[in-house]
Amino acid sequence: MAELHLLSPAGFRASGVYAGIKSRQAPDVGLLLCDAPASAAAVFTTNKVVAAPVTLARQHILSGQSRGAVVNSGNANACTGSQGERDAKQMCDLAAAAAGCKRNEIIPASTGIIGHFLPMDKVEKGIAEAGKYLGNSEEHALLFADTILTTDTRRKIAAADFKVNKQPITIAGVCKGSGMIGPRLVPANAKHATMLAYLTTDAKIAPPLLQRLLKSASDTSFNAVTIDDHTSTNDMALFLASGASGISIKGGKDLESFTKALNEVCRSLAYQIASDGEGATKVVVVKVRKAASAADAMAIARAIANSPLVKCAMNGNDPNWGRIISAAGFANARFEHNKAHLTLQGATVFSRGRPAEFDPQALSAALTFHEVQVVLTCNLGKHEATCWTCDLSRDYVTINADYHT
Amino acid sequence: MAELHLLSPAGFRASGVYAGIKSRQAPDVGLLLCDAPASAAAVFTTNKVVAAPVTLARQHILSGQSRGAVVNSGNANACTGSQGERDAKQMCDLAAAAAGCKRNEIIPASTGIIGHFLPMDKVEKGIAEAGKYLGNSEEHALLFADTILTTDTRRKIAAADFKVNKQPITIAGVCKGSGMIGPRLVPANAKHATMLAYLTTDAKIAPPLLQRLLKSASDTSFNAVTIDDHTSTNDMALFLASGASGISIKGGKDLESFTKALNEVCRSLAYQIASDGEGATKVVVVKVRKAASAADAMAIARAIANSPLVKCAMNGNDPNWGRIISAAGFANARFEHNKAHLTLQGATVFSRGRPAEFDPQALSAALTFHEVQVVLTCNLGKHEATCWTCDLSRDYVTINADYHT
Repeated sequence: MAELHLLSPAGFRASGVYAGIKSRQAPDVGLLLCDAPASAAAVFTTNKVVAAPVTLARQHILSGQSRGAVVNSGNANACTGSQGERDAKQMCDLAAAAAGCKRNEIIPASTGIIGHFLPMDKVEKGIAEAGKYLGNSEEHALLFADTILTTDTRRKIAAADFKVNKQPITIAGVCKGSGMIGPRLVPANAKHATMLAYLTTDAKIAPPLLQRLLKSASDTSFNAVTIDDHTSTNDMALFLASGASGISIKGGKDLESFTKALNEVCRSLAYQIASDGEGATKVVVVKVRKAASAADAMAIARAIANSPLVKCAMNGNDPNWGRIISAAGFANARFEHNKAHLTLQGATVFSRGRPAEFDPQALSAALTFHEVQVVLTCNLGKHEATCWTCDLSRDYVTINADYHT
Repeated sequence: MAELHLLSPAGFRASGVYAGIKSRQAPDVGLLLCDAPASAAAVFTTNKVVAAPVTLARQHILSGQSRGAVVNSGNANACTGSQGERDAKQMCDLAAAAAGCKRNEIIPASTGIIGHFLPMDKVEKGIAEAGKYLGNSEEHALLFADTILTTDTRRKIAAADFKVNKQPITIAGVCKGSGMIGPRLVPANAKHATMLAYLTTDAKIAPPLLQRLLKSASDTSFNAVTIDDHTSTNDMALFLASGASGISIKGGKDLESFTKALNEVCRSLAYQIASDGEGATKVVVVKVRKAASAADAMAIARAIANSPLVKCAMNGNDPNWGRIISAAGFANARFEHNKAHLTLQGATVFSRGRPAEFDPQALSAALTFHEVQVVLTCNLGKHEATCWTCDLSRDYVTINADYHT
């Protein structure tokens, strides 16, 4: 079987071109279009400062219908006032011209530096060119995946499929995110890095259900990854369902399969973000078990995953578990260290209020692996949460001290 | 006039000796004793995981009376179970023997690595020796100040005095703190890096008033400094009033003068912590003005001060103000960027939703100074807050990746 990609689901075309917005020569303007009106759902940043494209996208998504997305990287079009609003609208107008639809059928997005006006001459040429090179091959899918990258060192793609009456349904996605990553995504009708994610499927599915599934999948994937806990002004995940398979997903076992595949795709993308965090040398998977509530479990997992001290210890392969327990202790959650149990890479380092015996050399060696598992069992209830992060390295500082405005 | 120090207020003696707990040869066991029972107040960490000495100190402070403090550095005696509790009690017993008082008249503290048992043979010898070398000279004050240091690169001392009926009253303090700094201190009867602070005064002042003044002073000093927002298991600030001046502080103008001097001392100590943050090359003073509430002002200031992206930009002398505005936007506070105004080192970089014109080279040069002023005016109310932090450097990572257990 050929590798699945963003355009494997029928009904979509995409492109990515270099318009000269990014400093390095790499695609920076892209289109992801549906051949016919698609069901659409999206979740957006909870930052109270939102970029112009986010404000517009929130309006455009409310109909539950879309003909696709336009995106640029290299410039966030955030904190750019009314000029930024006009520019975001113009991006939609230009994409709508390429798609043969109306402005409000296009979902815009931008990612890059905050506080600079978009170079609209370049954007205009870029979107026109992107309109000419649309296609549904894997190459087109990869070009679009590359278009949204900024400080990312590699593209992030995931896909899953399942069968309904022997006919395959595919869910696919691409995303970007490496720094300014602490997404807290919620639907547009609620208030809510840049993390950008684009998901496609050929299933036929009603917009309210699509929205509900995306919200739920985001909570345990995009909203559970943190690089620096800095929620961006531009975060968005967009899910487009073309319906081209002719197969409706409404409930029962098919909905279960669909949900499972969607969760798998979103969690894979989130993991890839953590793995490619700015300066990261490893992924740190923080699992909190037996917490008093689901919110407590996530609060504790996030406190651990966000602690610079924990992340530096991981960078140094140091089994300094005191930093993990103390981070759990200051999370806004119920926690009793006399009941808790902590393992690093499977080795018990702390149990019920006391240090446990372990071989520090062997554990330090195990912490050099690409993935580190931190498992904290609270013994206060039955709830659990997983959060993905990465270590904090000197390279994170270099990237963010030297990435000048 | 001679330099004021921790033992300038009459009625106190102190000492510091090297007992071999720290890896480098520097004092690590100290005593700060009062010649007679002193009024005592303290605030403690809000971390739910508290070190054994904190648990004990919380009990001992409730009487409002104390004969002094015992402290060790190099080991936090945290997450050490019932053995740790016994060790903390023994530290108090040994100090009480030196002071000629009861165990519960001594306030214990420890700072250093979490999860290791105290080397009690060394601690025992150290306290006995510290009891022999007590004195009230400046040298004794400085030795005690050095005793509490861990990753600090310099001692932190402050003092202020004022006159009541031509007689001087002095408030003096020492503190430590460089990493694991995000104190959230509250009184013992409420629930609450190690940051340790010791304050002395020769004023005569009732314990409940002393407690109220310390709580209030802490909120705008120790609780407003953050290096890595990692609230420690061992944070404490202790305030001892010997009454040796014979002058009572109860209210009116004298209380105003006392409060002013106390705030001055605490804020100076907090500033010194930010200035000596692990790996710091500069202090970043974040002032939020005209916020909708005091809590909003502090939440916004903290979100900015804690953002690794903001702190890296400061390290790189980069006027990347988008990171500051976006941090304000994800704080748990009311914020409208279309009303906000932001200056860096006095230069307006953002005003009412739009970027402002500024000379990036000149501003970048101004960001190399030892102190950076970030002033965000919200224009939503009349409340303000100040938070102190430092930049995030490669050295912070080096210190915390290589400071092995």
